[in-house]
Amino acid sequence: MTNEEILGVTVLNSWKLVINRFNKTLSELSDEQLQQQAAPGRNRVFYLVGHVTAVHDRMFPLLGLGNRLHPELDETYITNPDRALGDPLSATELRRAWAEVNDKLTAAFERFTLEDWLHKHTAVCNEDSAKDPTRNRLAIVINRTSHVSYHSGQAVLAK
Amino acid sequence: MTNEEILGVTVLNSWKLVINRFNKTLSELSDEQLQQQAAPGRNRVFYLVGHVTAVHDRMFPLLGLGNRLHPELDETYITNPDRALGDPLSATELRRAWAEVNDKLTAAFERFTLEDWLHKHTAVCNEDSAKDPTRNRLAIVINRTSHVSYHSGQAVLAK
Repeated sequence: MTNEEILGVTVLNSWKLVINRFNKTLSELSDEQLQQQAAPGRNRVFYLVGHVTAVHDRMFPLLGLGNRLHPELDETYITNPDRALGDPLSATELRRAWAEVNDKLTAAFERFTLEDWLHKHTAVCNEDSAKDPTRNRLAIVINRTSHVSYHSGQAVLAK
Repeated sequence: MTNEEILGVTVLNSWKLVINRFNKTLSELSDEQLQQQAAPGRNRVFYLVGHVTAVHDRMFPLLGLGNRLHPELDETYITNPDRALGDPLSATELRRAWAEVNDKLTAAFERFTLEDWLHKHTAVCNEDSAKDPTRNRLAIVINRTSHVSYHSGQAVLAK
């Protein structure tokens, strides 16, 4: 393996590890348990899953990977706090959306070369990217990996 | 910046972001709040901080960065579950240990070249590293970044 290949696989392994951990927690929670709060007075697990699904779905345009699959989630799970609006999807639909978004992202990441990883993301202009080349796709994916891990640590408390 | 430099800074930025988020949460919790559980029946925040400090401290030998600073934490915060043993450090000492370990790790990561990042970690032998070169320092640091983020999401619930 070249250094470039090693790098890509290393980042991808970490992403997969975290997604799989969240998947395991989700598979162990019934639809009723998804309605539980991670801790008293905090977000429901359902909200956390909607939130990470929406945030991951936003990576499609952000990383130049095409259109979003579930833009309808933002209003409920990003713009508003938990319970401000009703859930737009059933538990089954939400589980499916979560899996669908991650499967498609993972497939795209598997095709990334080092140049692809270090390419600027779409929310930064060429001028700013020249000033700060760390505003790249790699930064987004590593930060999203940490972000989903943060909420994974909360979702597991509902078990 | 070369691709190698961009890569190093990108990974380091993500590490720093997550450590700083945990630092912020810690700074907002009183010593009494550290004794609270993240959720009913779950680990105390004090235990979570001891746990991530011990896990990060283990990175010194694992990444070939020298001796550990706080090996005395493992028995209480890795080997045993919360409350099985008494806390060996006061809250002030634990906060200091956490900062000390991360500051020293961060300083070491700032000196890493791409070759350093992709160098095998010490828990893998040369033969296994040749078979799977993704068992490297980069993998360890990205995974530890996700790990501390996981517990950061829990600690914040005690606020």
